[in-house]
Amino acid sequence: MRYQIDQAVAILRRTPETLTALLRGLPEEWTRSAAGQDTWSAHDVVGHLLHGEETDWSARARIILEEGESHPFESFDRTAMFQKYQGYSLDQLLAAFAQAREKSLKTLAGWRLTPEQLTLKGTHPALGTVTLSQLLATWVAHDLNHIGQIVEVMAHQYADAVGPWRAYLAILTRPILTE
Amino acid sequence: MRYQIDQAVAILRRTPETLTALLRGLPEEWTRSAAGQDTWSAHDVVGHLLHGEETDWSARARIILEEGESHPFESFDRTAMFQKYQGYSLDQLLAAFAQAREKSLKTLAGWRLTPEQLTLKGTHPALGTVTLSQLLATWVAHDLNHIGQIVEVMAHQYADAVGPWRAYLAILTRPILTE
Repeated sequence: MRYQIDQAVAILRRTPETLTALLRGLPEEWTRSAAGQDTWSAHDVVGHLLHGEETDWSARARIILEEGESHPFESFDRTAMFQKYQGYSLDQLLAAFAQAREKSLKTLAGWRLTPEQLTLKGTHPALGTVTLSQLLATWVAHDLNHIGQIVEVMAHQYADAVGPWRAYLAILTRPILTE
Repeated sequence: MRYQIDQAVAILRRTPETLTALLRGLPEEWTRSAAGQDTWSAHDVVGHLLHGEETDWSARARIILEEGESHPFESFDRTAMFQKYQGYSLDQLLAAFAQAREKSLKTLAGWRLTPEQLTLKGTHPALGTVTLSQLLATWVAHDLNHIGQIVEVMAHQYADAVGPWRAYLAILTRPILTE
């Protein structure tokens, strides 16, 4: 699929509700457990999504729109949530993420981006030249990636409990996501 | 984690709502697209979950409880949904899955399973001897596996649109789930 704003927003606005349906009120054995070195718990992942929402996606889009390639994006700290949201409950993170997402979607809608603007360029500190549509498509794929990471780390809590069925559950046998 | 009924049911009862939050009303470009040979669209996956709910999980548990190892389970047809639910809209599949899940959770609750019953054995047609708790844990991991499969196949629709960010999105670069 080519990037189209309406189709992309259809995913972005569903993510907070999806995470809330999946996670709110779950026992902490499910939400606070990681599955080995460099893996994140569901709680960690929601914090990561919240931090991205507060500091990354719309800020980078704004840099492209206002400054173009001359101003490289800030690096994004993928593990900032470990400090930043220490002491937050999962319910607090979910509510804050829903609110931050609503705000950034309002910002996006307010820009009324044209097809021409979607081709505008920016500079990623490691990847080099990127376009606004690539940034906005990545926002969507990043949501989906991290929903996948959450169900994966939760499934791994039952890696032993499923016994021989493990052989049929690809989510348990392929290398686990670590970021 | 060891299998515990309450913790497991906490996931099982959230799955229909999670899928509905993620998928209901989405443009069909997202929900009817697969991502290459032997991959399933979101629509296909929800049909697969519905078919399992109607024919597999509680039926197998009942065989263990009533007949034990003497009666091997029926093989489960993983691709039955392609015929069985032809013509169903995604909203119809989601509603039918929510209803079927509610019914099977009522059946499960009605059994008031004891820790001793969880160790009862059955015979899987390919895997051989399995226990009731392994079956019930697999029910949970299977839900999570297929939620992961849905977000993965949707993310793949943007595999090109994300441009150079592809390198950072493991959901796009590791081998895709095919069942």
